[in-house]
Amino acid sequence: MHTRYLEDFSVGEKFRTRGMTVDESEIMDFARKYDPQPIHTDVEAAGAGPFEGLIASGFHTACVIFRLWVDLGLMEKSSLGGPGIQDLRWVLPVRPGDTLHGEIEILEARPLKSRLDRGVLRYHTIGYNQRDEAVITFDSASFLKRREAVSA
Amino acid sequence: MHTRYLEDFSVGEKFRTRGMTVDESEIMDFARKYDPQPIHTDVEAAGAGPFEGLIASGFHTACVIFRLWVDLGLMEKSSLGGPGIQDLRWVLPVRPGDTLHGEIEILEARPLKSRLDRGVLRYHTIGYNQRDEAVITFDSASFLKRREAVSA
Repeated sequence: MHTRYLEDFSVGEKFRTRGMTVDESEIMDFARKYDPQPIHTDVEAAGAGPFEGLIASGFHTACVIFRLWVDLGLMEKSSLGGPGIQDLRWVLPVRPGDTLHGEIEILEARPLKSRLDRGVLRYHTIGYNQRDEAVITFDSASFLKRREAVSA
Repeated sequence: MHTRYLEDFSVGEKFRTRGMTVDESEIMDFARKYDPQPIHTDVEAAGAGPFEGLIASGFHTACVIFRLWVDLGLMEKSSLGGPGIQDLRWVLPVRPGDTLHGEIEILEARPLKSRLDRGVLRYHTIGYNQRDEAVITFDSASFLKRREAVSA
């Protein structure tokens, strides 16, 4: 897909990403760096733990789904960073071999009054596994360039 | 520090993590995997971009601060995973060479009525840079074991 600017998004519009399989070595590699808890880094300890097996760090799941969204290329030339994330929920554990994809729905595409060259895009993301079960949901936002800066 | 169970936390209690320096290669390595946008992966393009230089992915900043919290070891034997994150804000960009630390304040430590062996710990996290400027804030939660399961 090609870069879109703020005006090119419509409220209610939906996008679906490609899938990505998360394997055991990637789960453990991510967790050793960013979430070194035994349920993410130690197969044996995780097997005896509350999830009865190794699960991905919730931060890892969020990062994979966000990466798939970035890969759509919609914001490639228009993104100006993001203000944050609202209400991120880890709904189900992600296990080695799960194949994740994201579905993103546009909630708002609003020009900023304070900066005439940009606006805020808000969107709801759901990450699904290969059984089409939601594993993560979050609302986030990006600042996007407008197609043409508007005069005051 | 030693593992704490739900009852060992008090509302208003504060913790400070050690610092961790985020260098250019780590920023680019993370971003190539999880947030491949030029402002995070391409020094030259980032220099001409909205932040006038390479900045860390906001997801990377969140992961580094969370890792420093995990490293305190408070939840090492008591964590049962987490339900999610509320209201994550990227306040200032993180640049190569910045040294980050986290300050965490306990908001709530509440036993669950539905599961007598555990409760919910809610906490507010602020990530600071070496100039003591807040770069990220978020509220998150963990399910923690109680010291002893309570009979109904």
